[in-house]
Amino acid sequence: MGRLFVVGLGPGDRATMTHGAYAALEAADVICGYTAYVELATALLPHKPTHATGMGGELERCAWAVHEAAAGKDVALVCSGDAGVYGLAGLALELAAKEPSVDVQIIPGVTAALAGAAVLGAPLVNDFCTISLSDYLTPWETIAHRLRCIAEAGIALCLYNPASRHRPDHLRKACDILLEVRDATTACGWVRNAGRAEQQHKVLTLAELRDEPVDMLTTVFVGAPQTTIVNGHLVTPRGYRIDG
Amino acid sequence: MGRLFVVGLGPGDRATMTHGAYAALEAADVICGYTAYVELATALLPHKPTHATGMGGELERCAWAVHEAAAGKDVALVCSGDAGVYGLAGLALELAAKEPSVDVQIIPGVTAALAGAAVLGAPLVNDFCTISLSDYLTPWETIAHRLRCIAEAGIALCLYNPASRHRPDHLRKACDILLEVRDATTACGWVRNAGRAEQQHKVLTLAELRDEPVDMLTTVFVGAPQTTIVNGHLVTPRGYRIDG
Repeated sequence: MGRLFVVGLGPGDRATMTHGAYAALEAADVICGYTAYVELATALLPHKPTHATGMGGELERCAWAVHEAAAGKDVALVCSGDAGVYGLAGLALELAAKEPSVDVQIIPGVTAALAGAAVLGAPLVNDFCTISLSDYLTPWETIAHRLRCIAEAGIALCLYNPASRHRPDHLRKACDILLEVRDATTACGWVRNAGRAEQQHKVLTLAELRDEPVDMLTTVFVGAPQTTIVNGHLVTPRGYRIDG
Repeated sequence: MGRLFVVGLGPGDRATMTHGAYAALEAADVICGYTAYVELATALLPHKPTHATGMGGELERCAWAVHEAAAGKDVALVCSGDAGVYGLAGLALELAAKEPSVDVQIIPGVTAALAGAAVLGAPLVNDFCTISLSDYLTPWETIAHRLRCIAEAGIALCLYNPASRHRPDHLRKACDILLEVRDATTACGWVRNAGRAEQQHKVLTLAELRDEPVDMLTTVFVGAPQTTIVNGHLVTPRGYRIDG
């Protein structure tokens, strides 16, 4: 009976990886995942056997990992960020349900919302929501409905997958929905390659964000109505009274 | 000129702490924070000088940390989970704005939403929201409005601070709001002491959750309408087609 570790690597470097994630990679007989994430793992553990597959191969990847674990291997199925936030934790549990001998362990990690927030300041330090703008698995009308509700809720928002080659205009469409309710001057920001060597970030308004070029390596933050810019950082107040 | 590391320790054990958080604790001249969190840090680094203060002392604690950093010390201001999720990152940045010589570094960590989700399965693997039920800094009517909007959005929800001695009935009131829109059979769960030795968890329905005794060490999860129970785990589907 093998173990299946579904591992959140964090954004990519060792600093933002948990000790538990590293221990799972060390313990595993094989590291399995999307090519770019397997490369992040083997940068730390270069001699591990790997099974890397291309983008879009989530089902085959999880099925392979469950099959190998059922055959007695300890498998680390790696995701960037957190395995339980837009990662493979759910799919792995669904597929492993047919193999009761497999011991599935979800190892949490620092998701892009947290890593990016730390770069920008403290935009998510009060209530917040994460929405993916990818309509690969969710119809756009469902995404639009969620955005309208969150705009109404008046909380901070973190947008995953703000754009890709096939949907270059999703961020603009999302901002137009938010702008129906939220002020054009709402403090916003984005972080590209959070926690990696090429990290970039920018603070801007919601009106400016609408026309901002972003890509699939970017995580976008829309502040709450109360979010302010403090010394170049996004800060959502929690309500402490700072006098003097 | 000192550095102020605002450190998310994760839930408490070394496994869920990032390498960067540990490195910041090691680099710091002094570890400052709420007593229980300072104890988590000194369990790993017992010989570090500390400055621990009681619950409710957030302003003094942050001001002390900024003052020491301005005086040239490297200070680790520790929070459980993530410093940028209901932690001290925002307050530290606001207070440090008056001391431009202080280099503030926010070190992200695994917040209770992610640690608890990994225990329960994959409830937050699609869009989700976190709401704190504490009305210490936010009026209850604001919290209630947010809950209504999130119920309408049809996404998973993670509730922080579901109860305390002074507000034993907040979870019941929150569930009553959610039940106006969401089905009584919605798959829910809670995790107490996530990532610690005394960890407990339970999967239950929204109707059952309403009357569940919880405390301030508990994090509560309300599934999306699509969330199901797979082999005892909460799983929110992402939309992959699993055939056969």
